[in-house]
Amino acid sequence: MIEKYSFGQPIDTGAVVLTISQSAQPFHLMQLTKSDKGIALSCQMNAEDVVYGLGEQVRGINKRGFTYISHATDDPFHLENKHSLYGAHNFLILSRKNGGSFGIFVDDPARVVFDVGETDMDRLSITAGCDCAIYTIEGGSLKEIVKQFRELVGTSYIAPKWAFGYQQSRWGYACAEDIREVVKGYHDKGIPLDAVYMDIDYMENFKDFTVDAEKFPDFEQFVQEMRAQGIHLVPIIDAGVKIEEGYSIYEEGVQNHYFCKDEDGEDFTGAVWPGKSHFPDFLNAKARAWFGGKYKLLMDQGIDGFWNDMNEPAIFYSEKNLKQVMEEVAAMKDENLDLHLFYHMKGLVDGLSNNEDDYRRIWHNMDGVKVCHDQVHNLYGYNMTKAAAEAFDQIAPEKRTLLFSRSSYIGMHRYGGIWTGDNASWWSHLLLSIQQMPSLNMCGILYTGSDIGGFGADATEDLLMRWLEFGIFTPLMRNHAAAGTREQEAYRFAQTKDFRNIIRMRYSLLPYIYSEFMKCALKNEMYFRPLAFDYPQDAHAPQVEDQLMVGDSMMIAPVYRQNATGRYVYLPQEMLMVRMRSPEDRSFQRMEQGHHYVDVALNEVIIFIKKGHMIPLAAVDENVRSTADLDDVQYEWIGFAEPTAEYVLYEDDGISKQYTPQSEWKKVVRTKEQLAL
Amino acid sequence: MIEKYSFGQPIDTGAVVLTISQSAQPFHLMQLTKSDKGIALSCQMNAEDVVYGLGEQVRGINKRGFTYISHATDDPFHLENKHSLYGAHNFLILSRKNGGSFGIFVDDPARVVFDVGETDMDRLSITAGCDCAIYTIEGGSLKEIVKQFRELVGTSYIAPKWAFGYQQSRWGYACAEDIREVVKGYHDKGIPLDAVYMDIDYMENFKDFTVDAEKFPDFEQFVQEMRAQGIHLVPIIDAGVKIEEGYSIYEEGVQNHYFCKDEDGEDFTGAVWPGKSHFPDFLNAKARAWFGGKYKLLMDQGIDGFWNDMNEPAIFYSEKNLKQVMEEVAAMKDENLDLHLFYHMKGLVDGLSNNEDDYRRIWHNMDGVKVCHDQVHNLYGYNMTKAAAEAFDQIAPEKRTLLFSRSSYIGMHRYGGIWTGDNASWWSHLLLSIQQMPSLNMCGILYTGSDIGGFGADATEDLLMRWLEFGIFTPLMRNHAAAGTREQEAYRFAQTKDFRNIIRMRYSLLPYIYSEFMKCALKNEMYFRPLAFDYPQDAHAPQVEDQLMVGDSMMIAPVYRQNATGRYVYLPQEMLMVRMRSPEDRSFQRMEQGHHYVDVALNEVIIFIKKGHMIPLAAVDENVRSTADLDDVQYEWIGFAEPTAEYVLYEDDGISKQYTPQSEWKKVVRTKEQLAL
Repeated sequence: MIEKYSFGQPIDTGAVVLTISQSAQPFHLMQLTKSDKGIALSCQMNAEDVVYGLGEQVRGINKRGFTYISHATDDPFHLENKHSLYGAHNFLILSRKNGGSFGIFVDDPARVVFDVGETDMDRLSITAGCDCAIYTIEGGSLKEIVKQFRELVGTSYIAPKWAFGYQQSRWGYACAEDIREVVKGYHDKGIPLDAVYMDIDYMENFKDFTVDAEKFPDFEQFVQEMRAQGIHLVPIIDAGVKIEEGYSIYEEGVQNHYFCKDEDGEDFTGAVWPGKSHFPDFLNAKARAWFGGKYKLLMDQGIDGFWNDMNEPAIFYSEKNLKQVMEEVAAMKDENLDLHLFYHMKGLVDGLSNNEDDYRRIWHNMDGVKVCHDQVHNLYGYNMTKAAAEAFDQIAPEKRTLLFSRSSYIGMHRYGGIWTGDNASWWSHLLLSIQQMPSLNMCGILYTGSDIGGFGADATEDLLMRWLEFGIFTPLMRNHAAAGTREQEAYRFAQTKDFRNIIRMRYSLLPYIYSEFMKCALKNEMYFRPLAFDYPQDAHAPQVEDQLMVGDSMMIAPVYRQNATGRYVYLPQEMLMVRMRSPEDRSFQRMEQGHHYVDVALNEVIIFIKKGHMIPLAAVDENVRSTADLDDVQYEWIGFAEPTAEYVLYEDDGISKQYTPQSEWKKVVRTKEQLAL
Repeated sequence: MIEKYSFGQPIDTGAVVLTISQSAQPFHLMQLTKSDKGIALSCQMNAEDVVYGLGEQVRGINKRGFTYISHATDDPFHLENKHSLYGAHNFLILSRKNGGSFGIFVDDPARVVFDVGETDMDRLSITAGCDCAIYTIEGGSLKEIVKQFRELVGTSYIAPKWAFGYQQSRWGYACAEDIREVVKGYHDKGIPLDAVYMDIDYMENFKDFTVDAEKFPDFEQFVQEMRAQGIHLVPIIDAGVKIEEGYSIYEEGVQNHYFCKDEDGEDFTGAVWPGKSHFPDFLNAKARAWFGGKYKLLMDQGIDGFWNDMNEPAIFYSEKNLKQVMEEVAAMKDENLDLHLFYHMKGLVDGLSNNEDDYRRIWHNMDGVKVCHDQVHNLYGYNMTKAAAEAFDQIAPEKRTLLFSRSSYIGMHRYGGIWTGDNASWWSHLLLSIQQMPSLNMCGILYTGSDIGGFGADATEDLLMRWLEFGIFTPLMRNHAAAGTREQEAYRFAQTKDFRNIIRMRYSLLPYIYSEFMKCALKNEMYFRPLAFDYPQDAHAPQVEDQLMVGDSMMIAPVYRQNATGRYVYLPQEMLMVRMRSPEDRSFQRMEQGHHYVDVALNEVIIFIKKGHMIPLAAVDENVRSTADLDDVQYEWIGFAEPTAEYVLYEDDGISKQYTPQSEWKKVVRTKEQLAL
């Protein structure tokens, strides 16, 4: 049961798609306090209660013990004490052991604070602004609460099937030749690949929707050349538009007042990659339509996928703030900088980027109403992605276009996915990426994954391999790294055969991964789930922070510690462990409910199939270079027949928006003898 | 068997105390390459080989998979990709499963690089300078290799017994009244406490060896007042000496050329807490004697413990570099800062602190020889601590003085302990501190511990509790936090009774902890050991990264994950699990060799006693406010009698340097019936 409570004059964020009236009863699930500053909600938590949700945040699946702040932030250091990452996902569930679990969604696009037992271990406190809508969801299981929430906020974005293939990215592919080399590197080693990403390097001086003609002499032809090899090119689009006379997008934006304004009514100027830039006012429907239409410039050249970046928005510095700071620093030149002055000076320089005062200087035109950016900060990336998606509906209405974003807010999940931003080549970030997946799925973000191998810092061979072994289960499976870090394309390391086998496993599992993704998207369910969602009666399940249910048939238990040759695994029921060294090299072991220590060599993947379940595996021979080559493959079925195993298979053409209706999903049943070994 | 290989003209670091001749045989354990740049060593590692050692570094007990650089660095972000922390501990053991294990110590006080399978997973590479001594140790077990190494570098520093009590620190205790409040806070809640630390706040304008008379009106009396309550005050001493006319230490240093020089022969000027400062030339024996003598100024007022800080040395900026940077930044004032210039400007400001060029501008006078700092960088903190220790031998020759340092090098372990520097209130740092302990013990650093609860960032109640549950086993057990972070004295949280019980457990365990520490120090052994050191035949032991052997009788398995109510534990042999909720509230369970999942509530500590072993427990009644109150207590014995249990008890007066000879250590034997329950 969903109840809605409006306070003040909520901004219409577009997060909610159902029409719900204000609740007839007073707000009762938490203590409510109203003040000039906003509303505060608070309730007691018992020791066994678990808090799930909040999407893209640090720490564990159980969010207890920290304060999370919804405030989209470009911060590459995803540390335990960071209160905000790139997205704002204000939905959580308080799971109460003894009944009374509920979900709560705070629809407020400004800063919302969730103190989940940090100040007091047994208290959940939420503070939001004066103008917001709050939705509470009660009744049924955790899964049912999520399903109700997802129906409230609408069906998730669905990517084309090719975007479920393995993808390679790097900030630093400087020209067509670099990309050709990467594709050749993979193909020479027999490793399938579906896409190569084009980071900011491809543009002409970092100008959106341009392609540097020197680096990519005939871009349209190059797109075709890649496509002929099964490779989709996926260019990045940044939020900031370079200020440059003669650059049509800049000029059109200025002429038509499509850019955000500053407090004086001038176009706001901040610096990002191209230096001084203006920022499209994505909260203005006209500006959105205008900017979205520009994607056509690249789509006309054959591009069918994009990633939207820097849309928190990230601002290296604003013109006005930089001027003030530089003057203040220059004035200190001849002073004897004591510690106080020195740290003041350092603070000024460090504070130039993503400055809160700058966000208060930016103004939007929302359907004629002037709104200060800091009141709607978390909607910016969302609406950039909405701009693109709405345009795709015009430009290519019949087919799916790949689209994901760095910044997001609930509601954006209908228009695109996200990647989890600029993580690092740290083992702790492999674990973090595992833990983020179910929290994101709860909030509707299904097409997602982390930068495999880690974006910042240097990846090691073993880290990349373990990360891929988890990444083969994430809908977005992309290896991405920052300029200046060690090259981490899978073919560059010594154990090529193992990398090849692991990535081939992804293609072999693809019928399952795609089918499960599609079923979850169409039924408003979660693809990745904490164990406690599936086994609500299991006393130990809420403790499990490093295993996930993936789709309907399986559980995974990735290895995420350096030098580990095994790990502990908890089985909430009897399952069949499948150990895979390649799609063909499999062994099976029935395992009891309970705790186990399992050896997992560096080149092995283990999956656990539930009793009575099975999964389809595609044959991945040497001819399979991309998802396109999987089309007419017969599946092998592996599973745990007792006495039979079943699976509901979703299939479609992978590209059109004609999704197969549930009545046509195929139920497949096999006996033990009919299963493959 | 120890072999020595000298290259070039090694600087005498004082790390080694035995006289060893150059080996008669050529260097053979690793491939050796000499070049103009220095020497490079390299060897193959098999998949099962483990690398132990390197002291204070990030990552796990098994150091494989990363590159560690010995280069003492003041960096509070102890992240997975940080190559250096505060110390330089160039000793490691390559543990080979099939024989041929060896230890190697690179006695080079400049930068040494250990690529432990980062570049190539199966290759260990070490690069050092042209002038260094290398010691290799072969033969026997891991324990025997460590023992040989420890005999080579000399017996570890021994702290007074009171310094094994619980200690409280915080940057920000601004005056005597603040400290009184902390002591009262603990005493009112019945929590024992032995020491309160005085961070930089106590000094007059951050001048070493001064006490601000306004904040501490009668310091000598205050020291006595605290002592009467069982509290030792432990002031901080920083490396940098404030430049201030009339400040005698500054003036004496200048007059006698006791400070490090710059390239022009002037006293080098860099800024630390007091602003512009000079840096005592601790590598100059005369300067060392002079600076060491200054500790007497505080000892004469009753102080008997010190911590030496900022001795990497940390330098916020050098006078010369700041001038250059400020001029360069000022010149940019009217330029249009494009991205390139902007990041250049930011880099200049960010690069002011601990600047490598500055380290190359500093010169030492080592017994008349002018030596550039960057060649001996890692000896600076070591020799600051040596200065103090040598002085204590003059000032208070009969008794032990508490002394530990932030920066260190092997050899310093004879003069003082270390704390593991400016960690953060992160769960990952609780695990890191567990993993650092055996690596530090290998290198001779026995008196050590981390800042319990974490220095930077905000501690939560559960983090502090879990950290204390590990901290009760570390010789240095100190709760410390940075200014601006949440107050984390144990009495400030809701579950006071649990905190009281956990800290009381430390006092109850103190007879064991002290006895084991002393035996290890006197026998050149490790107090904390990885499981594989004690169970070399156990195939799983090398995998265990989160359990430690503590002393001769027990194993610990701390909980280090938020919201965890239990953990997996591996038992290399049958053991007795003791579950303690207080010193008096104990329960026992015999557990089989193998893997277990064990529930551990937030207020519980579990220890595992080996078969045939036992431990003494002191009674900790409400009269026990500090270690002094434990003096005449009768011990209870708990243990695993099969049919009897034994323990070798070390006892002494806890303060004099007359250590009890091994012949007088007491062997105690108990039958099952004689053991307490």
